[in-house]
Amino acid sequence: MYEQSGATGETIGLLVEAAPGPGILHQLTGVIARHSGDINLVEILENRPSQSRIYFELDLPSSRVVETAKELGLVPAVRRVEVVQTFQRIYGKRIIIMGGGAQVGQVALGAISEADRHNIRGEHISVDTIPLVGEQTLADAVRAVTRLPRARALILAGALMGGEIEKAVREVRDQGLLVISLNMAGSVPDAADLVVTDPVQAGVMAVMAVAETAKFDLERLKRRSY
Amino acid sequence: MYEQSGATGETIGLLVEAAPGPGILHQLTGVIARHSGDINLVEILENRPSQSRIYFELDLPSSRVVETAKELGLVPAVRRVEVVQTFQRIYGKRIIIMGGGAQVGQVALGAISEADRHNIRGEHISVDTIPLVGEQTLADAVRAVTRLPRARALILAGALMGGEIEKAVREVRDQGLLVISLNMAGSVPDAADLVVTDPVQAGVMAVMAVAETAKFDLERLKRRSY
Repeated sequence: MYEQSGATGETIGLLVEAAPGPGILHQLTGVIARHSGDINLVEILENRPSQSRIYFELDLPSSRVVETAKELGLVPAVRRVEVVQTFQRIYGKRIIIMGGGAQVGQVALGAISEADRHNIRGEHISVDTIPLVGEQTLADAVRAVTRLPRARALILAGALMGGEIEKAVREVRDQGLLVISLNMAGSVPDAADLVVTDPVQAGVMAVMAVAETAKFDLERLKRRSY
Repeated sequence: MYEQSGATGETIGLLVEAAPGPGILHQLTGVIARHSGDINLVEILENRPSQSRIYFELDLPSSRVVETAKELGLVPAVRRVEVVQTFQRIYGKRIIIMGGGAQVGQVALGAISEADRHNIRGEHISVDTIPLVGEQTLADAVRAVTRLPRARALILAGALMGGEIEKAVREVRDQGLLVISLNMAGSVPDAADLVVTDPVQAGVMAVMAVAETAKFDLERLKRRSY
């Protein structure tokens, strides 16, 4: 049930059902902080008049797991606490593909087939897409990728992208995100880590670049454009 | 910059950069609770020895937005507070496709093309996939969908699924998730809301079922299998 994250503690998933209302997150995080839990992920799954459900992933000294769960259960608003598998273990790294539907679909085909081959060998790579049009809409979506949990690479699939999207690409690369662009009109290819002409290959390369099970290192590529 | 969520308040996105360390989330949520903010989403974007970055989406009385942001900035560990666009606005509803790579890819093609058509008309639908094998692995991933934010429909794309996966499908349907299954061997089709033979059509139908811009109501379908 648990996933080891180091020698001294473990990463656990905790699912908490509670009465609704402002302040519940404040109370729960107070209990976790008192036990020196380091929270990596919070998902508010339900926030309704009848009930709230909150999911945490946290690093916790092994000796504290049982008592932390127990103490969360003692918070008056809490109805149920369950220890569950972590997302990192289930969904793993994310590749994000955005742009026009026709091309996003072809890139996704390549990425999904390649992810399948690595996931069979123990990787956990998921492929997420959003078909979008418009310079500002796309630029906003590119910037938001750095706020998505577990996102490792972004592929821009379109026929023409530039301007504000190019700026957004430079910003997210500065924050450590890998960006692959299809070979297209506009200035986005100039700003990307890698430019690929065939959309299926672009998807395959993105997965190879983030997979531990692949021998593919962008740093060692002789060309930046394929 | 803001998205209206009702007459009395607004849903805002707040990006907070702070010094790292356990307890920071507890302090921030305390400020938000004091201003009667109702938190819908928390993303811990960075949790490193040098810095933590946390993103909140919350409903807040309009009159409190400025002072809440200001007071968060006064928490000693906080380095920067920024009001940003919400995810709901950028990425919208999610369709999740899981199963074997070959079939997941075909379903994704249909879903991405159809989402494109609706997104052009103002919808926000993204299509997320994970190629996976194994009964227990898939059952875990199915159950975890109800812990993913903004997930509206799940498509199971494979040639044989049953046992623990069927149980997981029934559980997530009880929690309100729409489940579409390809026509396949095993007991999963019996447990799904809808069974579709052509993978491309399965993707298209899933998007139509969750799109506000489509005239497609599962409740009104005469058949459960296509």
